[in-house]
Amino acid sequence: MKSEDVPGLREIEKAAERIAGVSTRTPLVESPALSRRAGCEVYLKLECFQPIKVFKIRGAYNKISQVPQRSVVAASSGNHGIAVAYSSRLLDKKCTIVVPENAVEEKVSAIQEYGGEVVRVGKISSERETKARQIAEATGSAFVHPFNDASVIAGQGTCGLEIAQQLHDFDSVLVPVGGGGLISGVSTALKATKPMTKVYGVEPEGAPKLSAALKAKKVVSIPSPSSMADGLIPSALGELAFKICSRNVNGAFAVSEGEILAATRAMVNEARIIAEPSGAAALAPLLTARGRRLGEKVVVVVSGGNISRDLLARVLEA
Amino acid sequence: MKSEDVPGLREIEKAAERIAGVSTRTPLVESPALSRRAGCEVYLKLECFQPIKVFKIRGAYNKISQVPQRSVVAASSGNHGIAVAYSSRLLDKKCTIVVPENAVEEKVSAIQEYGGEVVRVGKISSERETKARQIAEATGSAFVHPFNDASVIAGQGTCGLEIAQQLHDFDSVLVPVGGGGLISGVSTALKATKPMTKVYGVEPEGAPKLSAALKAKKVVSIPSPSSMADGLIPSALGELAFKICSRNVNGAFAVSEGEILAATRAMVNEARIIAEPSGAAALAPLLTARGRRLGEKVVVVVSGGNISRDLLARVLEA
Repeated sequence: MKSEDVPGLREIEKAAERIAGVSTRTPLVESPALSRRAGCEVYLKLECFQPIKVFKIRGAYNKISQVPQRSVVAASSGNHGIAVAYSSRLLDKKCTIVVPENAVEEKVSAIQEYGGEVVRVGKISSERETKARQIAEATGSAFVHPFNDASVIAGQGTCGLEIAQQLHDFDSVLVPVGGGGLISGVSTALKATKPMTKVYGVEPEGAPKLSAALKAKKVVSIPSPSSMADGLIPSALGELAFKICSRNVNGAFAVSEGEILAATRAMVNEARIIAEPSGAAALAPLLTARGRRLGEKVVVVVSGGNISRDLLARVLEA
Repeated sequence: MKSEDVPGLREIEKAAERIAGVSTRTPLVESPALSRRAGCEVYLKLECFQPIKVFKIRGAYNKISQVPQRSVVAASSGNHGIAVAYSSRLLDKKCTIVVPENAVEEKVSAIQEYGGEVVRVGKISSERETKARQIAEATGSAFVHPFNDASVIAGQGTCGLEIAQQLHDFDSVLVPVGGGGLISGVSTALKATKPMTKVYGVEPEGAPKLSAALKAKKVVSIPSPSSMADGLIPSALGELAFKICSRNVNGAFAVSEGEILAATRAMVNEARIIAEPSGAAALAPLLTARGRRLGEKVVVVVSGGNISRDLLARVLEA
């Protein structure tokens, strides 16, 4: 499969074989307290149980296990970089991650702990991607895009495949949307296995890439995207993700910063689970009237749990 | 079955039928981060996913669903009272809970929210039990003991039955010990279904009831038991629990307050799960050299998640 091809169920099944034993088959559990609050059965797909506490290991490992090069390069300010470093070490490949000058030190440390070499460049994501592609070309390394890549999307799709295996019937799935890799993979797996299930994206009001793209019927770039959900602020969907989402996705919810904070807090107070804001965001529509039309059984993809101690303290205080 | 009889697997299976749909079949999940830290595969049985965030619903509902009386009485400073109130409401019975004068207001509110009438008496648990038994006699109500009761123990045993169904083979199970109801039920279920599995109790150094009883070969009363793990400080095992534990339990770990705090913190930082100290305590031996001899696959019963906001803040700061 070429990196710009649309992956199907077969590619996701192959990815599941490749990542078995590396990525965890994460639990899918009903939360009685959240169900009571939302007025429907709420099931949480807990990607915070991954070895690196975030779903990104699925796509990164699936991709890197297939590249012929002995070294890889990625641009990231966070979870993708950790996933690439972690996967590269397991696959015995050299790894370089281009991070912003103002990167969070905890995340830089995690990349280095897994043996990744860190290069600091500028503050804007396009600068980082340009630099990473330059390094890849100069060193003959593979460039690993965080979402606009068929193998990465197929890897993320294993999360959807697991949901389909873990729960018999359900009405809707809510998936957080950054560049669209996760929802592309999850929706592909679910439309193939549970065609009646509806798939919705959830994104910050400050970075409504999916809402804008579905409306304009093309990729739309959001100027100055921002949110406390730092995994959900790429300025645009990937072209491949847009192609897939426009077929598979039933709609998008743009949620406010207050709603994201409330969802993160509800995860802690009601479900006793610590999620990062990007991971809790998909719960947000269920805590408002907008969630009423999602059906009797709703799956929420809790994409990760890498929250800083300071932000967690703020969530608890509020 | 009389309340002083030793329950067997059959009673636990019957309890599982009674509580189905009320108690949750809680998830049993491996935590990759805790496994890495402990040097063995660590599986968490997450009782914090119960509707009232604690295992006590299993025993309380099983008991109350069998009593002929239309009203019940219990003495409790916390989780047992919440479980009795919650179960009574579902079973349409009147419920009175005797709590200490200095009871935590959050727990009193929870009891009242579920329709329980609250009576405040003294500060010592024996005073509360005496008062509760008086009320039961005067009103013709059923008295529900938190642990020294065959139906309560059979109900708690459903937790062990689920573990046996959820995981094929494992070496050891660590269970927190208060009055001994949970470990009595869990060990009965496991010795009947997985006879090679070892079952260990974990208790605070400030309340080493099980260690003392196993050594003395009789129930021993601990003067002034104390711990931040407020679910683990009855002064002695129940007589019935002692009888069962002396047959089934392979040993006891007494853990320090520092170890309990560290285990609660590790649950948050490594597994992204919020447990109360009584619930996290069973993890503590795995974080020290004492856990090395427990085998390759170890199940930790995380008995509950009812931690106050203040204590959680302290856990996060430490």
